Formats: sequence, C-alpha cells, structure tokens
Amino acid sequence: METTVKEIARKARAASRAIAACPGSLKDKVLLETADALFANKSAIQEANARDLEYGEEKGLSSAMLDRLTVKDATIASMAQGLREVAAMRDPVGSMDETWIRPNGLEVGRMRIPLGVVCMIYESRPNVTVDAAGLCLKAGNATILRGGSEALHSNQALGRIISSALVSNGLPGEVVSLLPMREREAVLHLLRQEESIDLVIPRGGEGLIRFVVENSRIPVLKHYKGVCHVFVDETADLDMALNICMNAKVQRPGVCNAMETLLVHKTVASRFLPMAAKSLLAAGVELRGCPASCALIPEAKPAAPEDFGMEFLDLILAVRVVDGIDEAMEHIARHGSQHTESIVTNDLSRSRRFVREVDASAVMVNTSTRFNDGGELGLGAEIGISTSKLHAFGPMSVKELTSAKFVVMGAGQVRK
Amino acid sequence: METTVKEIARKARAASRAIAACPGSLKDKVLLETADALFANKSAIQEANARDLEYGEEKGLSSAMLDRLTVKDATIASMAQGLREVAAMRDPVGSMDETWIRPNGLEVGRMRIPLGVVCMIYESRPNVTVDAAGLCLKAGNATILRGGSEALHSNQALGRIISSALVSNGLPGEVVSLLPMREREAVLHLLRQEESIDLVIPRGGEGLIRFVVENSRIPVLKHYKGVCHVFVDETADLDMALNICMNAKVQRPGVCNAMETLLVHKTVASRFLPMAAKSLLAAGVELRGCPASCALIPEAKPAAPEDFGMEFLDLILAVRVVDGIDEAMEHIARHGSQHTESIVTNDLSRSRRFVREVDASAVMVNTSTRFNDGGELGLGAEIGISTSKLHAFGPMSVKELTSAKFVVMGAGQVRK
Repeated sequence: METTVKEIARKARAASRAIAACPGSLKDKVLLETADALFANKSAIQEANARDLEYGEEKGLSSAMLDRLTVKDATIASMAQGLREVAAMRDPVGSMDETWIRPNGLEVGRMRIPLGVVCMIYESRPNVTVDAAGLCLKAGNATILRGGSEALHSNQALGRIISSALVSNGLPGEVVSLLPMREREAVLHLLRQEESIDLVIPRGGEGLIRFVVENSRIPVLKHYKGVCHVFVDETADLDMALNICMNAKVQRPGVCNAMETLLVHKTVASRFLPMAAKSLLAAGVELRGCPASCALIPEAKPAAPEDFGMEFLDLILAVRVVDGIDEAMEHIARHGSQHTESIVTNDLSRSRRFVREVDASAVMVNTSTRFNDGGELGLGAEIGISTSKLHAFGPMSVKELTSAKFVVMGAGQVRK
Repeated sequence: METTVKEIARKARAASRAIAACPGSLKDKVLLETADALFANKSAIQEANARDLEYGEEKGLSSAMLDRLTVKDATIASMAQGLREVAAMRDPVGSMDETWIRPNGLEVGRMRIPLGVVCMIYESRPNVTVDAAGLCLKAGNATILRGGSEALHSNQALGRIISSALVSNGLPGEVVSLLPMREREAVLHLLRQEESIDLVIPRGGEGLIRFVVENSRIPVLKHYKGVCHVFVDETADLDMALNICMNAKVQRPGVCNAMETLLVHKTVASRFLPMAAKSLLAAGVELRGCPASCALIPEAKPAAPEDFGMEFLDLILAVRVVDGIDEAMEHIARHGSQHTESIVTNDLSRSRRFVREVDASAVMVNTSTRFNDGGELGLGAEIGISTSKLHAFGPMSVKELTSAKFVVMGAGQVRK
C-alpha cells in the first residue's frame, strides 16, 4: 500500500508542474467543462452514490450521516454552480502584489505562484471532492483527495469526471487524484510524502484533525472548532444586539461560526437578558446561564463549568454576565477557539480595544459571527477556515492556496 | 525534563499576550536598551563565552567552529547595530494591508498580528540569539531560543541581558527565554508543545533541519540548502555575465545564495567559457565541467553526476553547456533547491519565461544570486530564508513573523 500511495503522490508532483504553468483561460475551460459534465454524467454519479448508500446502510450509518452522503440533483447543481463561480474569479497566479526599486536600481517584486500539491483529507460529503479540486485547480495546484471511506464510489465517480475534463484539454489527469483505498493506514503513508506534497488540509471532526496533525510531516492548515462569543456592551443598541444574537445563534446553529456563548455587560443585563431570552426560547434555544443570568432568566438552567468553551453546534447557548470589557475579553481568551468574536457596542474606544486585543481569525463589531465565511467576506468560495496563524488565518480561498516568490530584475548589478 | 520544557513553553505563551499588546514605542525602547546593555555587559558576555570556548576546546571543536563560537568586540557591536536597525523599522502590528466594503455595507480588512510564540533552534553562533530575539520582539512575538549546546553560557548571558531590558520596562522576562539544558532530548519535548508554540524555525545544517521536520507537531519554516544556478543565455552581454558569475561564485562562496552551477548556452559557450574560466581560475575556483565544457576549458575536471545539485559552499563550480533555455530550466528543476536562480539575457520573452516558470524563492534577471537576502531586497534584517512555500518563501523578516486577522465593522448587519 505504501508503494501505491507514494506513486500517487509522485505523479501528483509531476502533474503539478503542468497545472502551475497552465494559462488561466485553460484552467477556466476545464472548470466549466467539468460543471457541464456533472450534469451529463448525473446517472453515473448517482449510481455510484447508491452503492455507497447501500454500504452505509449495511454499516448502520445514522440517517443524518446517510443524508450528508446522498448526492441529490440539488447537490450536483450546487457543485456545478460552485465550479462556475470559481471559473469567474480572477486568476491569482502570476500577478504581482507589489514591486519596489532598491537604491542600486534593482526592481524587486513578489509574484503569486501555486503551492504545488495540496492534499485534502475530509469526511462524508462528496461535494467537497469537487469544491476542493476546483479551488486548488484555479490556484494552479495539483490535488490529492482522500474522502470518507463511506463515500468512496461517489468520490471516484466525481474524480473521474474532473480527470477526463483535464485530459481532454491536454492536461495530466493526475492534476486531481483520489486515494483509491478505504484503510486509514493509507492516510498515514500519505502524511509522510513530504517530498511530493506541500500542504495538507483536513476537514472534519476534531479526532480526524488531531490524527493528521500528530502524524504529518507536511504542513497542515487546520481548524479544530468554533467557539464563538458575542459580547453585548453597556452602550449597545439593544435591538441591534438582539437581532445579531438571534442571527448568530439560530440562523444555522450547526456550523462553526454560530454563537456558542453570549456575554452581557452587567449594566444592561437586566434589560437585555429577559428580552433576548424571550426570543431565543421561542426559537427553541436551551439557555445555560451563570448565577447572575439565571436570576434574570427563570427558564435558564445553571451552566456547568464545561458549558463555557463548549462547541454545542446545536440550539444550546451558554450565557454569562460580565463586569465589563476586560472580563469579557478574559473570558474569550480563556474559552474561545480563535475563530470568530463579536462585540455589540457604540463606544469607540472599547470597539478599538476589542478589535486589537481579541485573538481570533475574525474580530467583529456590531455584526453577526455568521459572516466569517469566504463568500460573505468577499474572498469567493472557501476551502475551509484556518484557526492557526501560519500561512492563513480565517477563511481560505484561492489566494490562500498560493504562495509568492521574489522576482528581481537587474541591469548587471552585483553585490558589494 | 519534559516538565521543565513544558513549563518554559507555557510561560512563553503567557508572556506572548503582553508583548502582542505592547505599543511599538515600548518595544523599540527595549531593543535600544538591549543594544546599550550589550556594551555595558561586555565583560560578563565574554567571560561566559570563555567558558564555552574552553568546553569547546576540550570537546575538540575545529578551529573554524571555535571561531564561529567566539564573541569578539566586533560581534557585540554588530549585534547592537542589528538591534538598532530593527528598532528603526516600522511596527508591523496593527497595520491593515487592505480594506474593502461588501455590498451589505460591512467594512472588511486584514490587520497584522503577531504569530504568538516562535521557537528558534540553531547551531553555534551566539549572535543568532540576539538577532532572532530582536526580530521576533519587534513583530510582537515571544521567543524560545535553543542554541548550540557548545554556546550555552554565551547564550544564557545574552538572554539575561534581553530579559532584564524587558523587565525594567514592565514586560515579562519570559518574552525571551532560553532552553537551559544541553541534551537533544529537550528539543524533542519542545517540538511537542503545539499548544504553546506557534512556529519553529531551525537554522543550521541539513541534519538538524530534518530532525526538526520529522519530530515537530508545530509548523516549521525551513531552508534545507541553496543550490543556485546562473544561466548565461546566447543573447547575454558577456561582460555583464562574467561580472555576475564572479560575484555569485567568489564574493562569499560559503553562503546559501552563492552560485554552485553555471549553465551556458551552447552558442556562446566557446566565447564565454574560456574568458569566465580565466577569471574564475585566477580567483582559485575549481571547475568541474560536462564534456562540452571540459573541451573548452583545459583546466576543468570532468564533473561527476553528483556535482550537479551539490551545495559546495566552497570555491568549486560545476559547469554545463546546454542547448537552450528549455534544457537550462529542466536542469534547474531537477537539480535546484528552490532557493535562487538567475538568467543573464537580453531576450525579453526568455526573461519572462524564466521568471514565470522557474520554481525558486527568488528568480532573477541580469543580476547576482547573492542579492537573495532580506537586507539586500529591502525587507530589513532577516531571520532566515524559507525554501518551502507555506507562509513565507524566501527571506523572512519582521512581516513574515506576523499573521493577519480579519476585522469586520458593521452597523447591525445579519446574515440572510
């Protein structure tokens, strides 16, 4: 098995040279033809998917997991739409962010270049196969995909469609390749191909991500979890705060940028918490409060210490009354996950302190944590949200899948 | 020992919050006071250094190694000068590279922030202790330093000077800390403190760097070696080419951005190689050529296959005649180390192809490879040159020791 994995990685490295040098128009043509081919090959995809679903039922997967695994007509339409949006983005490769002249006349600049070979390790949803391959391809990278073992046939069907679009445009099919085996051991071998792979992006539960971090010799861009806070300051517009809290908690509670803990300034707690509780409870949210919060919200349960810092991913909210911005920021430093933090305030100096001092990939003032998303922030489609600071912090889109090299133009200068 | 290392890392993490929030003026004050204190404590530093030199002699270190280990008066002056230059640089922390407005009115920007805790693992030269700590401090990071075991006392003396400048300015001394033990096992424990350390930068021989990469759970910025080429194209100004080759090979042959292999277009080989050989041989350079080169240079030895791709770090040069730019770029792709590559040409389209297609941290036209250096490219002092593409590629200065977080300013927007 080690030999097979090594060979896949070696071929991806070779293919990465072709896609790195590929003009933007040709990359976009491959993306658009893949989008069309998804519709043209719908029955083949769904037949492969049916085999996976059958295997999943035998294995006793939950109905939620089977649902995530299913490639519906809408799934295909959304994958195709994603590819078209990526095709419409500007090609990052070859652009220079900045150039400058040295006193000796040398012209220095940094040119965007692909990273090389990117490896995605993810869990059940087959659409990640197409989304990730499309973004990596736009950035000029080759991709090695390792999806959930229960989605093997679906992923292989999707991979074949991308590879044939590549081949019919004169590019190596190995620009996008899939690990064809189900064993987890294959991932271990993959994580040791540091000569051939430049970056690993795991997407999934914390267990998967820790496994990758502990075993990889290749740099990893990771996102463990999203424990996001909203701090309602004493100068907040309370209607605005309510609207933001409802959006951050209720609009889509199962995602990483949803609010998990609400912090309220003690001066406004007696006005804000009863009105917030009313709306949150009406939306089905279970409230777990500190003693001061419970005194103001009869329906709230007392919070256990571990409720603060918990990623519920559900209609559950921890609530705490704080003395002020210092206690709020201390709470966030202790319990946050460096994902997304928001303050609702009308105080200028507090908003500036919050923005500067809070350590998170996105720090927000007077808006919902739900906006920490590549599309919403204007980056385009995202391949994930990094909560570590190396290379990328926050949503990662096409630009985050590139690097930059120095370009130096001279007229015979030598060093003294 | 594991407990001690863990405790050092934990304290560095705690101290990193203080230095991250520290105003630029105070960081600069610490840097300038440290520069002064290096002179004021010269005798203490040199006494500690004498103990290291004695230990080194007992251990039988070579005279070259003892020389690198020695803290001369000039070494102290150069460390102090380095700190003053870093103090004079602009504070990167808190600046926004770019901001933009979303259709819903959200203002989005990226604010530069420190990485957190940076760990430097290096070999003999004690000046790295001060240079690295200074750059990391300017970027708002805490630093854990692990120098060569033979430089332990010198490094501790230097570390104490930096820590007292920190403490006398109300900052935690642990913003800069040193691993106090000699055993390599301590490095292993350090490389597992992924909860407390954000980045590891190894500087030294390939053995040290591979050891770090294989054992680290923390992201590593690394530079294995510099195998740099100069390609003299048929349209090159041959006098310019000669001047560039002499500079790239002879000016300082022991460094990573020196030329190791010369590639010459076949059309100009018979004019260029004899004149280049004359100057190179006069400067004491040993030439190892391909058969076509040897036919033109009677003094050249035949190159062994492994001479191409070899980092000589010495007055030795491999020479090869190539059919044209394609063969030159193939040679570089096979034997280069993604460090620095230069073409000498007057052909516009070839210069553009070379710049776009060659995969190296710096790609140069009509100038010497020796310019791939933070100071020479205008970045300021450097902490190393990265030859991997994640986070930083090429010289790393203060900006490369930071990350960026998203800042989002709203007026109550919520997600639809």
